[in-house]
Amino acid sequence: MHAVSAPLFVRMLNNLSAILTKAENHAKAKDIDPATLLNAKLAPDMFALIRQVQIATDHAKGAAARLTSSQIEAIEDTETTFAQLQARIRRVIAIVESFKPEAYDGAENREISVKIPNAELKFSGIDYLSQWALPNFFFHVTTAYAILRANGVELGKRDFLMS
Amino acid sequence: MHAVSAPLFVRMLNNLSAILTKAENHAKAKDIDPATLLNAKLAPDMFALIRQVQIATDHAKGAAARLTSSQIEAIEDTETTFAQLQARIRRVIAIVESFKPEAYDGAENREISVKIPNAELKFSGIDYLSQWALPNFFFHVTTAYAILRANGVELGKRDFLMS
Repeated sequence: MHAVSAPLFVRMLNNLSAILTKAENHAKAKDIDPATLLNAKLAPDMFALIRQVQIATDHAKGAAARLTSSQIEAIEDTETTFAQLQARIRRVIAIVESFKPEAYDGAENREISVKIPNAELKFSGIDYLSQWALPNFFFHVTTAYAILRANGVELGKRDFLMS
Repeated sequence: MHAVSAPLFVRMLNNLSAILTKAENHAKAKDIDPATLLNAKLAPDMFALIRQVQIATDHAKGAAARLTSSQIEAIEDTETTFAQLQARIRRVIAIVESFKPEAYDGAENREISVKIPNAELKFSGIDYLSQWALPNFFFHVTTAYAILRANGVELGKRDFLMS
């Protein structure tokens, strides 16, 4: 459970960080207000880039804490700049790396509950990881990438896969 | 290795199938040529919807075969309609489901090589799954969803997570 979660989250968060660095550099080079990218969306009723990064990081730290039966460290959603998003990513990587692999022992059968608006979802650890944490995490990292691609930032699949 | 791959792929492919059904119904209801959605992209140098579905399915069947040391069943990339994409998804679900969980025993340490243009990547089974198969699979399923959202199809996160 550790092997297919923590290193994956850390790797993808590092890739996301490198993608955001390219986006910030793109804004500088093209004289675009960074806020234009930070607030860009793919559809009017989808979340903007900032929120995609916030939610992706939330799923990473949420998974690491839940799978190790630890407290979830709250982070306020106050970022408005690339620098602040980078700080959030670094903080979440540190949180994910703070749990020892042994803390995941037996996590596949651990009962995990997730509160969503108007409901509480109950999962075994393995179902939580494969049906909730991983799909949500990848959804928001990919959507962050897609928002930047749709706005002309020069990125390729390689940036998504390896930083 | 089975628990965090095969059921995840099948579940997400079923979700993708349901998303494509909504997209096809949307085209009918709004009198949009289905080809407009099937060939839609998020950026001029990104793949269109059809190719996103083809690659997503390729990663699912590729992972199931490689992790069980089986032959990868080739599928030609000839789809041009929603019905053909649905047939491809059904076929790939059947392929993924054809491998018994026991066939994944020891898969985390299996040496897996993946040919990409001009290079060959070598992974352990666990690294292949977490660094290659899952990120690629989710990338293409999410991008398919994002293309449809950006084109006005009424979808929500719930469609991505559960069909």
